[in-house]
Amino acid sequence: MTDTPETTPDTALVRPEARSPRGFGDKRGRDLIAERRIVAKVSEVYERWGFEPLETPAFEYVDALGKFLPDTDRPNEGVLALQDDDDQWMALRYDLTAPLARFAAQNWETLPKPFRRYAFGPVWRNEKPGPGRFREFWQCDADTVGSDRPEADAEIIAMASAGLRAAGLAEGQAVIRVSNRKLFDGLFDAGGVTDPAQRLTALRAVDKFDRLGWEGVSALLGEGRLDESGDYTKGAKLPLGVAATIEAFLASAGDAALSRAETLEAVARAGGLGAAGEAALEELAGIDAALKAMGVDQASVKFDPTIVRGLEYYTGAVFEAELLLETKDDKGRPMRFGSIGGGGRYDDLVARFTGQSTPATGFSFGVSRLASALRAAGRADASVRGPVVVIVFSQDDMQSYLDAVSELRNAGIPAELYLGRAGMKAQMKYADRRGAPAAVMLGGDEIAAGQVTIKDLDAGRALAAGVADNEAWKAARPGQVTVARSDLVQTIRGIIE
Amino acid sequence: MTDTPETTPDTALVRPEARSPRGFGDKRGRDLIAERRIVAKVSEVYERWGFEPLETPAFEYVDALGKFLPDTDRPNEGVLALQDDDDQWMALRYDLTAPLARFAAQNWETLPKPFRRYAFGPVWRNEKPGPGRFREFWQCDADTVGSDRPEADAEIIAMASAGLRAAGLAEGQAVIRVSNRKLFDGLFDAGGVTDPAQRLTALRAVDKFDRLGWEGVSALLGEGRLDESGDYTKGAKLPLGVAATIEAFLASAGDAALSRAETLEAVARAGGLGAAGEAALEELAGIDAALKAMGVDQASVKFDPTIVRGLEYYTGAVFEAELLLETKDDKGRPMRFGSIGGGGRYDDLVARFTGQSTPATGFSFGVSRLASALRAAGRADASVRGPVVVIVFSQDDMQSYLDAVSELRNAGIPAELYLGRAGMKAQMKYADRRGAPAAVMLGGDEIAAGQVTIKDLDAGRALAAGVADNEAWKAARPGQVTVARSDLVQTIRGIIE
Repeated sequence: MTDTPETTPDTALVRPEARSPRGFGDKRGRDLIAERRIVAKVSEVYERWGFEPLETPAFEYVDALGKFLPDTDRPNEGVLALQDDDDQWMALRYDLTAPLARFAAQNWETLPKPFRRYAFGPVWRNEKPGPGRFREFWQCDADTVGSDRPEADAEIIAMASAGLRAAGLAEGQAVIRVSNRKLFDGLFDAGGVTDPAQRLTALRAVDKFDRLGWEGVSALLGEGRLDESGDYTKGAKLPLGVAATIEAFLASAGDAALSRAETLEAVARAGGLGAAGEAALEELAGIDAALKAMGVDQASVKFDPTIVRGLEYYTGAVFEAELLLETKDDKGRPMRFGSIGGGGRYDDLVARFTGQSTPATGFSFGVSRLASALRAAGRADASVRGPVVVIVFSQDDMQSYLDAVSELRNAGIPAELYLGRAGMKAQMKYADRRGAPAAVMLGGDEIAAGQVTIKDLDAGRALAAGVADNEAWKAARPGQVTVARSDLVQTIRGIIE
Repeated sequence: MTDTPETTPDTALVRPEARSPRGFGDKRGRDLIAERRIVAKVSEVYERWGFEPLETPAFEYVDALGKFLPDTDRPNEGVLALQDDDDQWMALRYDLTAPLARFAAQNWETLPKPFRRYAFGPVWRNEKPGPGRFREFWQCDADTVGSDRPEADAEIIAMASAGLRAAGLAEGQAVIRVSNRKLFDGLFDAGGVTDPAQRLTALRAVDKFDRLGWEGVSALLGEGRLDESGDYTKGAKLPLGVAATIEAFLASAGDAALSRAETLEAVARAGGLGAAGEAALEELAGIDAALKAMGVDQASVKFDPTIVRGLEYYTGAVFEAELLLETKDDKGRPMRFGSIGGGGRYDDLVARFTGQSTPATGFSFGVSRLASALRAAGRADASVRGPVVVIVFSQDDMQSYLDAVSELRNAGIPAELYLGRAGMKAQMKYADRRGAPAAVMLGGDEIAAGQVTIKDLDAGRALAAGVADNEAWKAARPGQVTVARSDLVQTIRGIIE
């Protein structure tokens, strides 16, 4: 509430509706705390790995984002853009990579090179909002700009794995799958598949392996496929040799027992990879050597030649982090949770500004999506504990209430005084809504006797939830106790610890 | 780097300039770390005081912000606004209070009441950018909605004071000055000063007391004032009785020896306060009683009847936090640093939506401004320590380098491997730019001998800065040592601790 632009009270005559714009939401309580915890834990890991924090502004010039629609003078619809007073278009960042490219190009001379940075914060997409689909969400990225070494890719992968672990995913709950864009490039080149549309159809088919299995994918790589609903999808009509290599890719990807080196051998045996494919294998071998030297085990990071990472700007290695859990969909059917983050090597983004190709590699995850993954993996700390609430009986005893609040806070226990004007019953309801572990009651009698009554609201909740309904437990947690005033902090500690 | 809207590579043919939009900047290193530290420390205090975190989106509908220009259908120029696909105008929040009012109105039925929340994050103002004047900056707010008790104001004030302390300001480096809007309201009502323009002129004059002293202010409260440059400013032409009371206000504000209760007595003695002024005194007395009960000393929080807090939406108590330091301006002249935050009671913001007056009170500060204040007060931790850098000599010894990096990280010491392809000299320059405390060298000879050479870059910087230029110090910090490989962590600890 510092100085603000002047308000125009005239318009207050018509009462506005209290609602957020479509696709934007408020965050509080459990969800917010879980997301902040993820960001804090991951940041700690990234800083220990030598990545420095960077914060770029919300806005970039649209030309710097590369988000103009072809043949128009307006930004494309995927971004939220506005025209500045000087008529230049600026847009809210839609990811954290484009601003990094702008920053690196702008400061290249003075940056330590290679430049490692991590960043987190909101990004904005002007997409059609829907259930669970927001136009503002948090990403967390780490990138190394200026290193072409496979060790740089390996470091990003190993650090991403360490970050997921620090965020709360246990060993075996997630895997990072790694491949290289040039594998398919080389395969298509060598096999004479030059039409970009044909390549795209083939890659889309590979992406459906999970759902369709080899038979379905095989049809889509060949003539085409009639699905159960009777719809016909035209196939990529690949040469048989190319399709056979892709079958070998899929077989190696499906074999969980293969080590990274064994997967590379299987891919090499499939043959027909061309020069680019052979280069890809060499880069992956370099990444494997570095991962081994870093002590990254075979289960946490696997090679998988079917990883493609969409139609993006990647030019070499690509990574995808996946939650290894079957979760249930809305109808209770088992479903794969799928990707929780990804990244790869992109050597052309900085060149947009400087004209010079600059090697770069990075990993990114959506903070809300990782929070969902942690919930699905049973690793979310679901409890949000409110402060201890001190009940107000009489204005005359305010000093006693405030003393109790201060004493608790000084002991590091979040505590507050009820500040409304309602009676005892409403105050108890308030304490419950706040998620208070306990309510502290200092009535006139208690104050006179040097005592305090403490209501164990955590115990009440446990009983109500039926999680602790037995006599021994009830005897240990009597629900309400009156103790010496000097035992306040100790008694509360007994409840919250 | 997750899925992004499709890029349009066609436009990359013309290279864009790498720059941020006017009034927007990047943050890294020392400044970013200092600001994050402030937010973390203050958040910790606010949560211990029972304030829950809340995050509202960047955008609000413009009607909810109350930011339409009168007589037009466009938002005013102070906000960054855009028209959504459904033609509704939405704008980036310009503070954190308006979104809180919207949130509280929207969720009033289910919120625990009173509702305490804190929030931090960027806000956006569409102002003319200039040196040190940004269109995006971080605020940090705490508010209690739904309590009309003076204890609620006192709590906000005491917590703000505790927050400033936690952020790093020492005892005596800051003061929070408190007054009540209704003091002047009552004074003007009782003195027959009904013209809003006349009231405004008088309040502006009071605001200039620092600069003009009583003589200047007195002229501006009366007929008017001719300043040194020959410009004449028309005065408020207040009745003499009203001006006399204001003089008493200023006298009490200037007397640092007065306790809060004594200031209230001085104001009461000044007389002519009317019904609203008497109510203001009563509210301030209630705040003083609560502050005393909370153990808030007379030096940290003072009453000052001249505090007005601009032309804002406050309806009762107003607070202003001030840095108690003379700093120097650009020309080396002493200047007061001035306000580092403020707030007050506002009972009408939620009513904009609901039609029902809802008592609310809060405090806000700008995060960058507080960081500047800490620097001015000599309380900023100026050092940004980079990671330890492990030098690369030969690809063959990568395992040895990576082992050293892992060992340091596992000991909690930020560390990284140089990932470029430059030689020794460039790597040392890199380590220096990174702010590395030390460089770790594992040449072939060292590896063979089970040793490691450590270059003490911190010592080198201290020598270069001339802060440690004596023989005893040089003997203790020899600049470079070769030790047993097993002493790596211990030797690095000796440098950074």
